[in-house]
Amino acid sequence: MIQEQFYEDYEIGFSRRTFGRTITETDVVMHAGQTGDFFPHHMDAEWCATQNFGQRIAHGTLVFSVGIGMTTSTINPRAMSTGYDRVRFVKLVFIGDTITVTASITEKKPHPKRETHGVVVERIDIANQRGNTVLVCRSPVSRRASQARQRLAVPS
Amino acid sequence: MIQEQFYEDYEIGFSRRTFGRTITETDVVMHAGQTGDFFPHHMDAEWCATQNFGQRIAHGTLVFSVGIGMTTSTINPRAMSTGYDRVRFVKLVFIGDTITVTASITEKKPHPKRETHGVVVERIDIANQRGNTVLVCRSPVSRRASQARQRLAVPS
Amino acid sequence: MIQEQFYEDYEIGFSRRTFGRTITETDVVMHAGQTGDFFPHHMDAEWCATQNFGQRIAHGTLVFSVGIGMTTSTINPRAMSTGYDRVRFVKLVFIGDTITVTASITEKKPHPKRETHGVVVERIDIANQRGNTVLVCRSPVSRRASQARQRLAVPS
Amino acid sequence: MIQEQFYEDYEIGFSRRTFGRTITETDVVMHAGQTGDFFPHHMDAEWCATQNFGQRIAHGTLVFSVGIGMTTSTINPRAMSTGYDRVRFVKLVFIGDTITVTASITEKKPHPKRETHGVVVERIDIANQRGNTVLVCRSPVSRRASQARQRLAVPS
Amino acid sequence: MIQEQFYEDYEIGFSRRTFGRTITETDVVMHAGQTGDFFPHHMDAEWCATQNFGQRIAHGTLVFSVGIGMTTSTINPRAMSTGYDRVRFVKLVFIGDTITVTASITEKKPHPKRETHGVVVERIDIANQRGNTVLVCRSPVSRRASQARQRLAVPS
Amino acid sequence: MIQEQFYEDYEIGFSRRTFGRTITETDVVMHAGQTGDFFPHHMDAEWCATQNFGQRIAHGTLVFSVGIGMTTSTINPRAMSTGYDRVRFVKLVFIGDTITVTASITEKKPHPKRETHGVVVERIDIANQRGNTVLVCRSPVSRRASQARQRLAVPS
Repeated sequence: MIQEQFYEDYEIGFSRRTFGRTITETDVVMHAGQTGDFFPHHMDAEWCATQNFGQRIAHGTLVFSVGIGMTTSTINPRAMSTGYDRVRFVKLVFIGDTITVTASITEKKPHPKRETHGVVVERIDIANQRGNTVLVCRSPVSRRASQARQRLAVPS
Repeated sequence: MIQEQFYEDYEIGFSRRTFGRTITETDVVMHAGQTGDFFPHHMDAEWCATQNFGQRIAHGTLVFSVGIGMTTSTINPRAMSTGYDRVRFVKLVFIGDTITVTASITEKKPHPKRETHGVVVERIDIANQRGNTVLVCRSPVSRRASQARQRLAVPS
Repeated sequence: MIQEQFYEDYEIGFSRRTFGRTITETDVVMHAGQTGDFFPHHMDAEWCATQNFGQRIAHGTLVFSVGIGMTTSTINPRAMSTGYDRVRFVKLVFIGDTITVTASITEKKPHPKRETHGVVVERIDIANQRGNTVLVCRSPVSRRASQARQRLAVPS
Repeated sequence: MIQEQFYEDYEIGFSRRTFGRTITETDVVMHAGQTGDFFPHHMDAEWCATQNFGQRIAHGTLVFSVGIGMTTSTINPRAMSTGYDRVRFVKLVFIGDTITVTASITEKKPHPKRETHGVVVERIDIANQRGNTVLVCRSPVSRRASQARQRLAVPS
Repeated sequence: MIQEQFYEDYEIGFSRRTFGRTITETDVVMHAGQTGDFFPHHMDAEWCATQNFGQRIAHGTLVFSVGIGMTTSTINPRAMSTGYDRVRFVKLVFIGDTITVTASITEKKPHPKRETHGVVVERIDIANQRGNTVLVCRSPVSRRASQARQRLAVPS
Repeated sequence: MIQEQFYEDYEIGFSRRTFGRTITETDVVMHAGQTGDFFPHHMDAEWCATQNFGQRIAHGTLVFSVGIGMTTSTINPRAMSTGYDRVRFVKLVFIGDTITVTASITEKKPHPKRETHGVVVERIDIANQRGNTVLVCRSPVSRRASQARQRLAVPS
């Protein structure tokens, strides 16, 4: 569950894949309730049926949050993401779609400010049950290099 | 509630600001429950008290989702965001912090693929009750130009 | 749990009182999420602190819904309320207040349309931990008279 | 989002209409969880199937709370409702029904106690996707007259 | 609602039965969110469809918690359960199944440590809509004998 | 995340320990809402203050469900628990307590009915932030022996 990993331990091309998770009506209703976004695109089945997309759409922030959450099960608990780049909603996600996330290391580079760290960039690819990508983003994470190794303070 | 606005109607420098919203323990617990991210940074008050940040931290995706949700109250319901750029978690948000969102138009440019559209870029700035920015991102939204005006299909 | 009671079985002056229930921050946040009412009066602790009421207020519909729910534990499951009269928010309810509900029969009268039924009016009085009434309403319920007695279809 | 309006600004006959919202199984389960009303009418699909109504019914307080919540998006944030009159559950709402709310000003009258205020009465009409009214009530709101105009303290 | 009952008041063979409750997708999603158990057995409809059980399964702890909760409506509020024996998941519960709980007194015996108390054992049997048992357990509850009678402190 | 392990792979004495998790007011309110157990012991802070335990108590089934959920992060996803023995609520858990779970293998024995399987018994010990055990139970899990090895069908 806790994996101490240093900058050198990450390899470009390494890829991990999560379990699947079905996006349910409950997820959409609870996300509306958390964010306050009750737009008819998410909440009004009757109106959606009159639109070209035909049915209620999961919020982009729901797909993003759940997808990112799905990738957190095995990573280093000390790695607090500092952001995301080029988050793109590629395809709509509907109630009943099942998403799976693939996180792949696509880049490693020096840290712009800290000599003891490097930046590891993961590409996050969220796909639906038909294998179509629905959301992509890049997640640059700053990682300590091992010469700076010191015991990580994590809950034992 | 529904505002039909075209590419020409957006002006660089225009800025809108939301009400405030206090990020509660409930928000953090429900967001853990929605995303599956139960890392001790968000869920274990005892362990957090032993760390330099000292207390439980709101998930980055929670602050992002709530902040984006807070901006949706007045925009055009047809505008489905196609993504976000350079999402940066600038400061930690703790339980009890109150966030407010400012959305400012910072850029207008031709659409890369569609002649009848332009891209309006909003800078989203989420600040806490002390006026410190906690999260920023850019939200490029494709907008139809008025010469292509046609009646928007929205729920009457 | 199931109590078959007829119009004649209700006596003016009969009063029942529920357990107490503390209205929590969770209740307010979840009610905002269910109803979409994220007004700063309920959600923004900072702004509330600048107002004369000083702190976040429970939604009127939250106090009403919880109070009515608290009275449902012992009544006849066949009695589906047809409405409420003169719902009045007498005092503000804040996070941490504990409410208790007293339901008292104040009136019995013939049913306006059905000879076999009568109307029993309960006065619902929701009070806080200081014994101050925070919400009142009247609940007129149509009840069958016993000459029309027939076996109630309830889950055995 | 914030609209400063005085007693004189309201006109009898003015009507506004909300977006639609589909009442989901999630809404019913969460409302049972918030209110503690787990009666089989709302929670037991098997038993409901043996009754003349045939399926699970949304709680009256759920339809009322969501409907009132749907009307709060554009009104004056300072207007704190002091109550509701003649709340009537006209038709059952089932899981999957979509409700829309129309609020119409039906009456204006002097305030019984305050010379500087008047009372504006809105009729709230909640209808399902077939256009049938499912719940009605009257919402009398006390409004300041403009001669008493003073700057409203609202979150900027 | 409050029933003061002593050890002598319980009779072997006495049985009570609850209303039914349909286990919904909402219950499963919320239970995952409460417990952090997002295993694909509960959350991934696509993968479940490839397994011999064919569809998402309610968590064992969900069925247990809801079933126990269903029995609490009429018992003595002072009786705080000290545990459960031989909790057995006999059959899978799927989304849409409706459970009903039967609690039967199967044993009475002296308390191992307290002379003024006895132990009353209830067998909890949770069945689905086809009458098949899905979960059983035994609930031994310590009960005061009446010779030790004293006024119970319960909320009036 | 997926660990294929056979009966022989489990060793008596092996022990694993989870992160901590703070039991919040939100957890208690949501668990009441999921189970329908709104007893004043969990919901009425005023009344609790008059009792010897002094404050609201987490439901036993909440502590049990969360504790079991906390242990599911690293076990074999195919292992569907068939039950729990001697679940004992040793100490009360209050809002704000932080629990940690230790699962230790205490027993291995032949399966009563299946030659190809054995039973591995884990002792689950849930402790609070002071190191006091609050709940214990035994979890006997049937495990296949390796001579019967066959490819596990798990989501890739």
